[in-house]
Amino acid sequence: MNQDKIILAHGSGGKLSSDLLKNIFLKDFRNPILEKLDDMATLNLNGVKVAFTTDSYVVNPIFFNGGDIGKLAICGTVNDISMSGAVPKYISAAFVIEEGFPVDDLKKITGSMRKAAEEAGVEIVTGDTKVVEKGSADKIFINTAGIGLIEPGIDISGSNAKVGDKVILSGTIGDHGIAIMSQREGLEFKTGLKSDCSPLNHLVQDMLRVSKEIRCLRDPTRGGLATILNEIAKQSGVSICIEEEKIPVKEGVGGACEMLGFDPLYVANEGKLIAVVDVADTEKVLEAIRKNKYGRDSQIIGEIVESPKGKVLLKTLLGARRIIDVLVGEQLPRIC
Amino acid sequence: MNQDKIILAHGSGGKLSSDLLKNIFLKDFRNPILEKLDDMATLNLNGVKVAFTTDSYVVNPIFFNGGDIGKLAICGTVNDISMSGAVPKYISAAFVIEEGFPVDDLKKITGSMRKAAEEAGVEIVTGDTKVVEKGSADKIFINTAGIGLIEPGIDISGSNAKVGDKVILSGTIGDHGIAIMSQREGLEFKTGLKSDCSPLNHLVQDMLRVSKEIRCLRDPTRGGLATILNEIAKQSGVSICIEEEKIPVKEGVGGACEMLGFDPLYVANEGKLIAVVDVADTEKVLEAIRKNKYGRDSQIIGEIVESPKGKVLLKTLLGARRIIDVLVGEQLPRIC
Repeated sequence: MNQDKIILAHGSGGKLSSDLLKNIFLKDFRNPILEKLDDMATLNLNGVKVAFTTDSYVVNPIFFNGGDIGKLAICGTVNDISMSGAVPKYISAAFVIEEGFPVDDLKKITGSMRKAAEEAGVEIVTGDTKVVEKGSADKIFINTAGIGLIEPGIDISGSNAKVGDKVILSGTIGDHGIAIMSQREGLEFKTGLKSDCSPLNHLVQDMLRVSKEIRCLRDPTRGGLATILNEIAKQSGVSICIEEEKIPVKEGVGGACEMLGFDPLYVANEGKLIAVVDVADTEKVLEAIRKNKYGRDSQIIGEIVESPKGKVLLKTLLGARRIIDVLVGEQLPRIC
Repeated sequence: MNQDKIILAHGSGGKLSSDLLKNIFLKDFRNPILEKLDDMATLNLNGVKVAFTTDSYVVNPIFFNGGDIGKLAICGTVNDISMSGAVPKYISAAFVIEEGFPVDDLKKITGSMRKAAEEAGVEIVTGDTKVVEKGSADKIFINTAGIGLIEPGIDISGSNAKVGDKVILSGTIGDHGIAIMSQREGLEFKTGLKSDCSPLNHLVQDMLRVSKEIRCLRDPTRGGLATILNEIAKQSGVSICIEEEKIPVKEGVGGACEMLGFDPLYVANEGKLIAVVDVADTEKVLEAIRKNKYGRDSQIIGEIVESPKGKVLLKTLLGARRIIDVLVGEQLPRIC
């Protein structure tokens, strides 16, 4: 580590997050499950295959167009579990609340959690509440951990991509990050942008019903599409080539990105997934995705190629190819 | 809820925590598993019985005599899992870090987590890091969730206490809370008090090896011995009668309690357990506890009686009996 102090970029999901993981967490907590570097751990509990994951949510503002910190805390963890092909079942919810936080806001948040949990079909089965003095936390932070069941025969991991596989993106990118940012900048009424925050578990099950050849699933949250594709390329030791013109971006999101100086490839999503699929099954998987309300705008955006290994190539609208790297620095602090 | 704002006492583990749970969390998240109100959820995953629990740690100071926030985050969750009789296996670790936090302190914390995890025999298999702006959190908060395996035939719950059962306490009370408080008050060099923060899973397994008649296990953390006994009395619909003279309190802890105005019955512990055991097995369970290094000072402190249902009676040194209630208000904010 070059820094001697933690900076915001350590939480970006990009380069410094990955350094922190490698230099501190992996060093101390080293074990084969953690080393797979998937968004969830895959456990064998006396013969039952289980996905286990955790995330803390510190999003600011806590209420935003399209959701709130409660909905996000359920959807984010449901989605991380689902990216292993697991069916999410049980969620824990732990709250760190700042003294003076309005009880009515807490009720709104738990109401959103209930609704999101109902839609996803998960139960919140255990929890914890800590309260800290005024000024010791910013309003409310929520941690959710979750458990899902993985059916026998399913083996989905960021390390399974093979040359020739196709890359599917389930919809437009940048919606969540730009909704949050435009709200922070006071632009929300102009843009009307809405976070895409949604539980994707039913979508994943729709995909698994039509194909057993889904190799990798990831939700492009912090760090955005570019960072997550880079992670898959590195984990699988392949190259990923995507086409700029195939990547759906909403007009308002594109415009806000220009205005605010962001590249949508690096902006967080909370209701989208990337799937790497055997070429033979691509069309039927795409069809299944498009039938689900969260996958209507899905597109085949590229394919897995041989080299340069561990890199992501973008074929631009003008036909040039450029390497796109992981997110460096911090683009949007506290986006989730 | 009478309050319209969250106050510190909502995180005390006492009366207001219980109100918050009933009036908000249980209302929105209602399901049979959560309603059992044990410290962990007991899940059936395709026939495998699993304990699942979560806690966020916001202790202040983060480094204290006898441990730090990292050791506490592992031990606390290992202990919550163990109180179902489960063998803890897998832990998640999620960090919310304030911008500017020293990387060296983070390394000390992860080092403590590794050591505690090694002692307990658990693996940290998944995690998350969020960084918030300076002033938006106080240094570092850690959430751990955990999964443990429950052997067939084990049924331990706060609702299983039966009239005639004995109550065992595994050692002295108040060590953790008073160590933290005396450090905050700058008294630590005078008192030399040390937190009892320890993983109790091996102790629980030692107990289960000699008896299948262990009805309830609880670790008396926030709210202390008095609050946790009240919870068991209510869950089981019995009365618990304990004898003041049987409750071990270290001299330094007793002295500091007097000086600081605390009642050790309500002070948090992080390395003690309460066991309700069938009278026939009490002696052999006590013997097993005393053989473990974390149970040397254990004592039979009382028994389960018929009435007054849901209440805890304390037989004082002078022979009087008084009802001791749950913790009301906040005694020691950010003790864990």
